[in-house]
Amino acid sequence: MQEASHRPVSTSKTVIVLGADGYIGWPMAMHLSRLGHRVVAVDNLARRQWDEEGGTESLVPIATMEQRVDRWLACTGRTITYERLDLCDHDALDACVARWRPEAVVHFAEQRSAPFSMIDREHAVRTQVNNIVGNLNLLFALQAHVPECHLVKLGSMGEYGAPNIDIEEGYITIEHNGRSDRLPYPKVPHSFYHLSKVADSQNIHFACRIWGLRATDLNQGVVYGCETDDTVLHPELITRLDYDSIWGTALNRFCAQAATGNPVTVYGKGGQTRGYLDIRDTMACITLTLDNPPEAGECRVFNQFTEQFTLNQLADLVAGARRHHGQDTTIVHLPNPRVEAEEHYYNAKHTRLLDLGLQPHFLGETLVDSLIEVVARHAHRVDPVLLERPSVDWRTGGNEVWRQYADEGRRGALARATVELVGAATRRPPAHPGGNGLAGGRSVPEPAARPAEPAAE
Amino acid sequence: MQEASHRPVSTSKTVIVLGADGYIGWPMAMHLSRLGHRVVAVDNLARRQWDEEGGTESLVPIATMEQRVDRWLACTGRTITYERLDLCDHDALDACVARWRPEAVVHFAEQRSAPFSMIDREHAVRTQVNNIVGNLNLLFALQAHVPECHLVKLGSMGEYGAPNIDIEEGYITIEHNGRSDRLPYPKVPHSFYHLSKVADSQNIHFACRIWGLRATDLNQGVVYGCETDDTVLHPELITRLDYDSIWGTALNRFCAQAATGNPVTVYGKGGQTRGYLDIRDTMACITLTLDNPPEAGECRVFNQFTEQFTLNQLADLVAGARRHHGQDTTIVHLPNPRVEAEEHYYNAKHTRLLDLGLQPHFLGETLVDSLIEVVARHAHRVDPVLLERPSVDWRTGGNEVWRQYADEGRRGALARATVELVGAATRRPPAHPGGNGLAGGRSVPEPAARPAEPAAE
Repeated sequence: MQEASHRPVSTSKTVIVLGADGYIGWPMAMHLSRLGHRVVAVDNLARRQWDEEGGTESLVPIATMEQRVDRWLACTGRTITYERLDLCDHDALDACVARWRPEAVVHFAEQRSAPFSMIDREHAVRTQVNNIVGNLNLLFALQAHVPECHLVKLGSMGEYGAPNIDIEEGYITIEHNGRSDRLPYPKVPHSFYHLSKVADSQNIHFACRIWGLRATDLNQGVVYGCETDDTVLHPELITRLDYDSIWGTALNRFCAQAATGNPVTVYGKGGQTRGYLDIRDTMACITLTLDNPPEAGECRVFNQFTEQFTLNQLADLVAGARRHHGQDTTIVHLPNPRVEAEEHYYNAKHTRLLDLGLQPHFLGETLVDSLIEVVARHAHRVDPVLLERPSVDWRTGGNEVWRQYADEGRRGALARATVELVGAATRRPPAHPGGNGLAGGRSVPEPAARPAEPAAE
Repeated sequence: MQEASHRPVSTSKTVIVLGADGYIGWPMAMHLSRLGHRVVAVDNLARRQWDEEGGTESLVPIATMEQRVDRWLACTGRTITYERLDLCDHDALDACVARWRPEAVVHFAEQRSAPFSMIDREHAVRTQVNNIVGNLNLLFALQAHVPECHLVKLGSMGEYGAPNIDIEEGYITIEHNGRSDRLPYPKVPHSFYHLSKVADSQNIHFACRIWGLRATDLNQGVVYGCETDDTVLHPELITRLDYDSIWGTALNRFCAQAATGNPVTVYGKGGQTRGYLDIRDTMACITLTLDNPPEAGECRVFNQFTEQFTLNQLADLVAGARRHHGQDTTIVHLPNPRVEAEEHYYNAKHTRLLDLGLQPHFLGETLVDSLIEVVARHAHRVDPVLLERPSVDWRTGGNEVWRQYADEGRRGALARATVELVGAATRRPPAHPGGNGLAGGRSVPEPAARPAEPAAE
């Protein structure tokens, strides 16, 4: 790695990574550990529970947090301390912050799916309460114990919506009736989830103003890819990959559809434009952010993405990559389950991280090929129903697909809980269960989860 | 009454008033009932509970909701249906909306004190969860049962903060890099409470966009006065009046200080400028809003105030009113417990309600005199400690005054709960307890609560 953001740091910091069991959180914890920081990895494992509830699962099997940190130590000699706690449990969070006194906190620990937040009232409320209360608790814990700490908060480009003017990075100078002010950029978010992020941004901005906290709000685009320098070291170090309509991104779905010979499904006209970035660039962006903290009292906002694409461009990219392998791909347009503009102006600024030295990986057929390879390797775990059609509509909530899988999820969770209960009553479980221990969901876990050759097609 | 908004309506609507036990909610319920609407008055009585917890109370004793609706029927022959329920209890709210199928809902049912939300983490979280979840539950209940219903939501001018450009009514057209869009007006709110209102506004705007709900978000200024055509009919119909530093407004505090011969305390330099309106104009504004509903899918915003004042102007107005009665008033400046600009530009538009026909009552010495009279009448209930200094600081939360009164409040609540428990164990309470039954707090209830002559000074 050549980038400045990948050089081992001269000054080691104590960094708490909140949400360290997630798609980005786990690679981030390893990345910061590799750079020499003292990393505390915090998670309540809610993401795994939501999978169980909704009958979804990561396409690639993932290890437990205990297995991950053990394997990381074995592979690198570096320690990541894992603490299981819920940010909504203020006493636990407060004690954690007081004990570690971090120089920086990277906060991923939120419900992060727009469709999940649109299933029904309960999911909308759960999303907003979980995210807003967890974030508020964190602000108060920082104020109480480490007001100098740098809070790096993951926001979303989806907070802005799709305005008809250029999107600036967090603030905009408005000239109005002969006067001028620099104010927070107006937001028209896409979902109850994105609304929770807007509320977080407002609360963080306020805490910086009144308490002098320092924060960077990273309005991140859609992240793609699942491999970093660290995840490839061992199967137990890989991160999750989601393709279903609740947790997956459109690009992941397109790759899963192409890999399994299904039509690529674009929602609506496909002119929906968003910002995207490679997961390796997320690692670099957050490292650059940590290396360049804001002043006390400053609430800085970076738009964290590297390229803009329409859905149609992504679908064409996937189809093009397949064509180079002699495969034909059909692209179909489904009725859009979301309420959003399908043809619109979109020009979002993203120069502040480039100014700090970000050297982007751009999305090309090579990355798409590698994603399709990962899917092909795990093609037997792809559920064709979840791949075929969305399970949540913005107007009417979770549909019959959602209900069917949620019912199955509940039954599965109940069955697992019963087995555990019976097991616990008859024996004490070993500290580290035997076998490869990789989490399996509804599908049968693979016999071996190490990187394999792409399946023949 | 001459205004159009006070004429009995030709078309009677079913209107649910949420938060009908509050300072404005109760007069509003009566006002709409007087106009011929079928009024359902909903409250969970949280405001009374928060008084108990914090050791505060209304300067004027107020009747129970049961007494109020009984008295209203006796005085006017009109029925207001009272339902006790909590908006955070979705099942109860949903059933209420489904049963009444209202044409309009007026939503006051929120924790509405900025200092309360700044006491500590628990109060910040409680404020945001109470307000955001209650409002979300309402949106889902409306969508499920009465999507045509007009939601009239009380927002706050404090959502905007004090920007250096003119404040527009909810939206602003921004010209930027040669393009233009009309977007939500950027907000820099004053407190965790105001932040909850911003989150509400965003959620309502979203619900209108995706579900086609229709709403009016009323960004209300500071309301003064406590008498309407209806509250003066009988002592059991009066509404609450707060002067303490948690629930009272600056103007109420100034009047209480002047009435009791204490110095008027201005926080900071006193250049803080806000919008204000008479409680009778609140009645008219909401009536005009109900009479002129928005289109389906429209989220309309009105700035609901009639005049702007600085704190220094209010203090001078009070001192001037006293001077005309031969009384000298000292004005002192205390260190500002809030974090806010104390000298700033402030020009907020408020033409949309005027365009609908609002005829404002302006704040003058007559109104100040009447407020001072009310305080003087109840001067023995004024607590000099609560009057003298603020109990919450924006930087450090609730101070020793807050803690002392909260402790007393808890002890008082415990003592009352014990009495009730012992009483319940030995007898069944009568449906309507004897005596005048007006709620009393820490002070001894007055022997008679009917309007009396102003105390001699």
